[in-house]
Amino acid sequence: VIDGGAASTPTIDLNSDLGEGFGIWSLGDDEALLDVVTSANVACGFHAGDPNILRRVCDWAAARNVVIGAQVSYRDLAGFGRRSIDIDPESLTNDVLYQIGALDGFARVAGSRVRYVKPHGALYNRAVHDHRQARAIVAAVAAYDATLPVLGLPGSALLRLAAEAGLAGVPEAFADRGYTAQATLVPRTEPGALLHDPADISSRMVAMVTGGRLRSVDGTEIAVSARSICVHGDTPGAVAMAVALRRALIEAGVEIRAFAL
Amino acid sequence: VIDGGAASTPTIDLNSDLGEGFGIWSLGDDEALLDVVTSANVACGFHAGDPNILRRVCDWAAARNVVIGAQVSYRDLAGFGRRSIDIDPESLTNDVLYQIGALDGFARVAGSRVRYVKPHGALYNRAVHDHRQARAIVAAVAAYDATLPVLGLPGSALLRLAAEAGLAGVPEAFADRGYTAQATLVPRTEPGALLHDPADISSRMVAMVTGGRLRSVDGTEIAVSARSICVHGDTPGAVAMAVALRRALIEAGVEIRAFAL
Amino acid sequence: VIDGGAASTPTIDLNSDLGEGFGIWSLGDDEALLDVVTSANVACGFHAGDPNILRRVCDWAAARNVVIGAQVSYRDLAGFGRRSIDIDPESLTNDVLYQIGALDGFARVAGSRVRYVKPHGALYNRAVHDHRQARAIVAAVAAYDATLPVLGLPGSALLRLAAEAGLAGVPEAFADRGYTAQATLVPRTEPGALLHDPADISSRMVAMVTGGRLRSVDGTEIAVSARSICVHGDTPGAVAMAVALRRALIEAGVEIRAFAL
Amino acid sequence: VIDGGAASTPTIDLNSDLGEGFGIWSLGDDEALLDVVTSANVACGFHAGDPNILRRVCDWAAARNVVIGAQVSYRDLAGFGRRSIDIDPESLTNDVLYQIGALDGFARVAGSRVRYVKPHGALYNRAVHDHRQARAIVAAVAAYDATLPVLGLPGSALLRLAAEAGLAGVPEAFADRGYTAQATLVPRTEPGALLHDPADISSRMVAMVTGGRLRSVDGTEIAVSARSICVHGDTPGAVAMAVALRRALIEAGVEIRAFAL
Repeated sequence: VIDGGAASTPTIDLNSDLGEGFGIWSLGDDEALLDVVTSANVACGFHAGDPNILRRVCDWAAARNVVIGAQVSYRDLAGFGRRSIDIDPESLTNDVLYQIGALDGFARVAGSRVRYVKPHGALYNRAVHDHRQARAIVAAVAAYDATLPVLGLPGSALLRLAAEAGLAGVPEAFADRGYTAQATLVPRTEPGALLHDPADISSRMVAMVTGGRLRSVDGTEIAVSARSICVHGDTPGAVAMAVALRRALIEAGVEIRAFAL
Repeated sequence: VIDGGAASTPTIDLNSDLGEGFGIWSLGDDEALLDVVTSANVACGFHAGDPNILRRVCDWAAARNVVIGAQVSYRDLAGFGRRSIDIDPESLTNDVLYQIGALDGFARVAGSRVRYVKPHGALYNRAVHDHRQARAIVAAVAAYDATLPVLGLPGSALLRLAAEAGLAGVPEAFADRGYTAQATLVPRTEPGALLHDPADISSRMVAMVTGGRLRSVDGTEIAVSARSICVHGDTPGAVAMAVALRRALIEAGVEIRAFAL
Repeated sequence: VIDGGAASTPTIDLNSDLGEGFGIWSLGDDEALLDVVTSANVACGFHAGDPNILRRVCDWAAARNVVIGAQVSYRDLAGFGRRSIDIDPESLTNDVLYQIGALDGFARVAGSRVRYVKPHGALYNRAVHDHRQARAIVAAVAAYDATLPVLGLPGSALLRLAAEAGLAGVPEAFADRGYTAQATLVPRTEPGALLHDPADISSRMVAMVTGGRLRSVDGTEIAVSARSICVHGDTPGAVAMAVALRRALIEAGVEIRAFAL
Repeated sequence: VIDGGAASTPTIDLNSDLGEGFGIWSLGDDEALLDVVTSANVACGFHAGDPNILRRVCDWAAARNVVIGAQVSYRDLAGFGRRSIDIDPESLTNDVLYQIGALDGFARVAGSRVRYVKPHGALYNRAVHDHRQARAIVAAVAAYDATLPVLGLPGSALLRLAAEAGLAGVPEAFADRGYTAQATLVPRTEPGALLHDPADISSRMVAMVTGGRLRSVDGTEIAVSARSICVHGDTPGAVAMAVALRRALIEAGVEIRAFAL
């Protein structure tokens, strides 16, 4: 279910990938991020996340009133879900359902529930263009709970097909990524793909949230409309950047509020 | 939730392990068994069962009005959950929660839900005596849904601790296993452990259901009280045996009815 | 190392995929196939095959003097290695090395050794066209033992790049597959893709081995040159077909002999 | 093959667990440790270690002339091999063989080879007392290469059974663990189990190597004979401690030399 929002105050959600350890291995500072974000994309065990981690992150999120989303992935622990896989749509739908269900159990035990779905890594990128895989994700969400929004890239096949299926598609922006003049992300292999200056990042995001515009990598102003901003937390610097961004948004009069109810 | 049952008619549930393939590999004839049993112990992915199988078996079970139970296991695909593992109780609780949640998603998509929990293989056997692991299973069920019954061995720590925690513990008998004079199962390494004659098996189970008694391996009559009978389906002969048992029970005036509502 | 062969007698190798079970699950009749083939493509654990199976199949193969090859795959138990994966070449090289090494240990314990490498499933198909992945396989074989031949599709990038790297590339034909007029395999989705008549299959393969020619799906004669024929064994009918083919080849004066020394 | 050693100079090996990351996750500073130790217990993929890591660590070790050993484990990524598993001995033998073979492939590609075997975690501890599992490990090593030594706890069933099978059993001491008056390790749950002071640790180890004696947790002197000292590297402090220990040993006239040739 999507938050309708107030008419006058600019509002944004902050989301981050969490629970991305496995067994003895950890990744990022989940608790620190949970003090910053309003939506937690929790790994469900296919690219990362074991049951202990799912339990812990759901408990932490629920205690902070952070909304829990299922960060669903290809089954690929060794590749962290970063390798595109030619899985047939039916199997993908079922893989996504399995992950949502598993996480939802922990969310409910924590007194919350899964409130949205976001694909991870290579599946996220593939669902931008691949209609069959995007549709398979949408089919899983629609079957599980058609009131769950799908979080994804503005203009992606995923969001378009979600809308066609009657789901809410929620567009997100990336705080630390450069944008092309066509409002797509600068590929990671090109200059300007990653932004590092917290002040610059903060002012860009404030401009986007309050004015719907962003400066592209070649200096032109582009229109970017997003209901959520994705921040990272896998390094100490990343957490500090997320904290700075949150503060800057609040100081600019933006309300930080989850998109999902 | 437990079926209270009618006062006068002897009643029994038939349960079987289902969905125990993985990927390209299958095991047993799930559809044939689903025409015989009233309760399906569906593998959840830790010892067997992939998302496609969970989906399919839940759909089949729901279409036949067969009750769906979560057959939870140690995480051990290579050993089919048949190796006892010294997992700490907290991790075991979370492993069980993960499996219940994942299966429940498919059950709900099929229009049903998980209605009971039964441990599989080595976990089943360990929960007979190991209080810490038995309690860990109970903790998972209690956290997920305290109205779910737990299916297990009569006299086991699992059923005792389930009852202490306010859960319903449902005792089961094994159609094709011999019993000692102390009403425990004859170990598989000893003579009389496995029964093969369908007529003998059927008459034993009819006697147990209607009279609460069974002939032990050394010829004495023992008291066995069970609300469910476990049948197997991994061979064509096993399916035929289950069919014969079901028919014999019905002809003896026994009502075949699931224990869980 | 490649068998040079005798000048006068037509010679062919028969290869088959073996060891493709996992844990409790089995697939095909490995022992029956090992009495038919001269080369065993043994699964190495990534798409199928656990250590018990690897041990057993290597022992059986060595006892029958069947040559052991490493059937290397993407890491994908759930998909049986049948899904193409966008793995980076360096990781693919290392995945292949891991599998060859693991199998070679069992082959050596059995008194033999890994004598060739053949990619499995989606990796086999991808290595027909994808130069980066084909080169990654070749790099693994070259690093492990540059005297090991690579078994693959005639005309594939894999065999061409293997040759360029100084490896022996061995082309194979498929007994039960139809060929197009361009000497490629008829896609499985089209009519004529799969052949079922043992007599027809046998006469086709005899013609290919003795005359280098095959009838294509549209009736034209095409040139097909192969040093090995791939047969399947996952059904009782498949084993019978392999037995019939072997007999027909011998009766036609063909010597059945492994390509690798 | 065991290094005979020189008559006069006290000699010790330093070993450490390495390559214990998986996929995106890392653990410890492998390169720093490889500059300190003479023997690398390299994870083989069952509790940690993916093919990329095995390749890298073998290359690094070979470049530094550090001896490569196979750190074999139960198949348990989620539990990091720290849970005892009731695996049957035949399967355990084959699991160990698989791991040795896989690692040996990378070691050979790096110009070295696997020169010893050490069980990891729960398997290490179980092989101290459990004769069936200890014998299964020994059987794997004997089948693979009977000249490979086995590294383990002094007085363990593993070392005793290795010797009975004609293998070299190499006893090790633990730099940062307290010892009881009976020369066993102080359990981790009791005071004095873990030592933290680098100077104290160094002087204890120097005393052990040069005099064969160690101060136990209750102050008595005990005899401890070891050909190798296990150091850890999972924290920056651990690496510093290993560096300090190495320096102290050298300053005391001890030769740091691998036990395996």
